[in-house]
Amino acid sequence: MLARLRGALSTRVPRRGEVHLGDDAAVLRPARGKALFAVDVLIEGVHFDLLLGSLEDVGWKSLEVNVSDIAAMGGIPTHAVCGVGAPPGTPLDDLFSGLMASADHHGLALVGGDLSVGPAVFVSVAILGETAGTGPVLRSGASVGDVVWCTGALGSSAAGLARLRAGRAEASAPVSTGDPLVRAYLRPSARAREGRFAAELGATAMIDVSDGLVRDAGHLAAESGVAIDLEHVPVAPGATEELALGGGEDYELVFSTPAGLDVEEAFAGEGLQRPIRIGRCREAPEGHGALVTLRGAPAPLGGWVHPL
Amino acid sequence: MLARLRGALSTRVPRRGEVHLGDDAAVLRPARGKALFAVDVLIEGVHFDLLLGSLEDVGWKSLEVNVSDIAAMGGIPTHAVCGVGAPPGTPLDDLFSGLMASADHHGLALVGGDLSVGPAVFVSVAILGETAGTGPVLRSGASVGDVVWCTGALGSSAAGLARLRAGRAEASAPVSTGDPLVRAYLRPSARAREGRFAAELGATAMIDVSDGLVRDAGHLAAESGVAIDLEHVPVAPGATEELALGGGEDYELVFSTPAGLDVEEAFAGEGLQRPIRIGRCREAPEGHGALVTLRGAPAPLGGWVHPL
Repeated sequence: MLARLRGALSTRVPRRGEVHLGDDAAVLRPARGKALFAVDVLIEGVHFDLLLGSLEDVGWKSLEVNVSDIAAMGGIPTHAVCGVGAPPGTPLDDLFSGLMASADHHGLALVGGDLSVGPAVFVSVAILGETAGTGPVLRSGASVGDVVWCTGALGSSAAGLARLRAGRAEASAPVSTGDPLVRAYLRPSARAREGRFAAELGATAMIDVSDGLVRDAGHLAAESGVAIDLEHVPVAPGATEELALGGGEDYELVFSTPAGLDVEEAFAGEGLQRPIRIGRCREAPEGHGALVTLRGAPAPLGGWVHPL
Repeated sequence: MLARLRGALSTRVPRRGEVHLGDDAAVLRPARGKALFAVDVLIEGVHFDLLLGSLEDVGWKSLEVNVSDIAAMGGIPTHAVCGVGAPPGTPLDDLFSGLMASADHHGLALVGGDLSVGPAVFVSVAILGETAGTGPVLRSGASVGDVVWCTGALGSSAAGLARLRAGRAEASAPVSTGDPLVRAYLRPSARAREGRFAAELGATAMIDVSDGLVRDAGHLAAESGVAIDLEHVPVAPGATEELALGGGEDYELVFSTPAGLDVEEAFAGEGLQRPIRIGRCREAPEGHGALVTLRGAPAPLGGWVHPL
C-alpha cells in the first residue's frame, strides 16, 4: 500500500541533503527562521461527499487547507506528510494525484505518509512551513485603529456546495465542474503568496476564512483584544451576503494593518489581486458585547456550524 | 471540540519564543541539525480494538509509534500534532490523556491538532524531530561485516495481543493489564534514548521493529544492499520464536555497527539495557536469494501481515 504512495511520488527528487519517502522518517533541512506546524483532517461524510466531488478534489483540498494555515501565519509552506485511511478498493492514486497537484502548485514537497484500510476515507495532512525572517503573523497582534482587509470576495464555496447539492437533487440539471462556485468549493486555492506578502508589508494579525468571516474575524478580534466593525462585506458573484458572512471554506485571508498603509497599491505592485478593505478595529466592548459588528449590530454568525 | 484539546493541554507552557495551540499553525524554534518528519495512523478495528484496551492506551501508543520512527533515525523527538476522528460521545479526554503521558515521557510538546466526528476512531499523529549534530542513521548504511543488534527481546506484543484475545473469549479469565506481555502490546515504549545513543556510537543503519523482525531486518538489508544472517533470535519471556520473528509491534530497534565495537558495554555505561547481538551482514545473494536467513535457511516472515 505504501508502495503506491512511493510509486506516485517517485518522480520527485528530494532537495540536496534531504531524504523523503522510504525511511522511518523524512530527513529535511531545518526551517529558516521559525518553523510552522499544522494539521487538518478531512473525513468522508463530514467534510466531503464522493457523490459531489472526486477523490482527486479531496486530495487537492486536503493540502490546500493546510497551506492556508501556513499562509495565515505569513509563512512559506515547505513539506507535508499525509495519514490516510480508506476502504479496500478505493482508487488512492486519484487522491495522491490531487495531493501532488497542490504540492506542485505551491512548490512544497510531500515527504511521507502512512496508509491503512478504514471504514471511510479520511485524510489527515500535517504541514511544515517556515517564517524565513518575516513574521510569524499571529491572530493576536491587531490594535485599535487598524484597518481590516480580506484577500478576496466570500461565499463562493458555500454557494458552490449548494449548487452541487441542488444538481444532485435534479439529475436533469448536471453541474459543470467548470462552474467557478463549484470550483471554489471543490478546489479552493490557498492564498500563499498573499499571506506572505501581507506579512512582509507589516500585517499586525491574520487568519484564514475557514469557518466563515464572522467567526474567523471574531477569533482574530478575541485574540487581539479588539472589536471589528465590518464596513463592507465582499460578496462573491453568485453568492449572498449571508453566505459571505457565514458560509465558510473560502480560504481567503483576513488581516489587519496599521491605518494609512496603501495596501491595495502594494499588492497590485506585486502582481497580486488587490485586497478588499472590509472594516476597522475598535475598542473591545465591555461585558458581553459583540466582537464583530455590521451596520451597528452584532454580525450574524451564519449557518455554518463545525460538525463537532 | 478543539477547545477540549486546548483545555487538556493548557497546563503546558510553550518553550520561549514558541506558540502552540490557538493560532492557524504552531510556531516553533527550527530544528537543530536536520529536521525529521514522520506520520503514523491508528484506526479502530484495524490497529486497535476498544474492547481489548482503553482510549488512553490508544493515545499513548499513537505517539509512541511515532517517537519510535524518530528514534530509528537516531534523532530527538521535539513536537507532535494529532488529527483525530471519532464518533460523537467518544471520551476524547482519555485519548488526550494517553497522548500527553507519552509526550511528557519523552519531553516533547504536543503543539496542535484537528478533531472531527467520524464513523470510527482514528488517530493520525505527525511528529517532528531533530538530529542535533548526530545522524541521521538511515536504513541504507549497513556494510558487509557489520554486526546487527536489537535493543531488546521480541514477541511480547504479539503474545500480549493473543493473551488479550483469549481473555475476551473466556470471560472467566480476565486479563490483568499489569501483565508485561499485555502491557507491551497496549503501552509499547519507544526506544528513544537507545536510538539516540546508537547514533552517537556510530550505528551504520537502523530501523524499528513494527512489522516483525524478519520483515524489518529485510528492509534494512534491502536498502543497504546486504544480507543479514540471524545468529540468535531474542525471544521475550512468554513469547515464542515465531512471534519474535514475525509478531511485529515490538518497537525495539535493530541496528548495525562496524565489527569490533563494544556496543554492550557502551550501552551499559550509559545506564541503558545492553543490546542483544542478533546477527551479521554478509554479501547480498545473487538473484532471488533470501535477504534474511536463520540457521542457513530463509527466515520465516511469520504471521503478521499489514492490513493493506
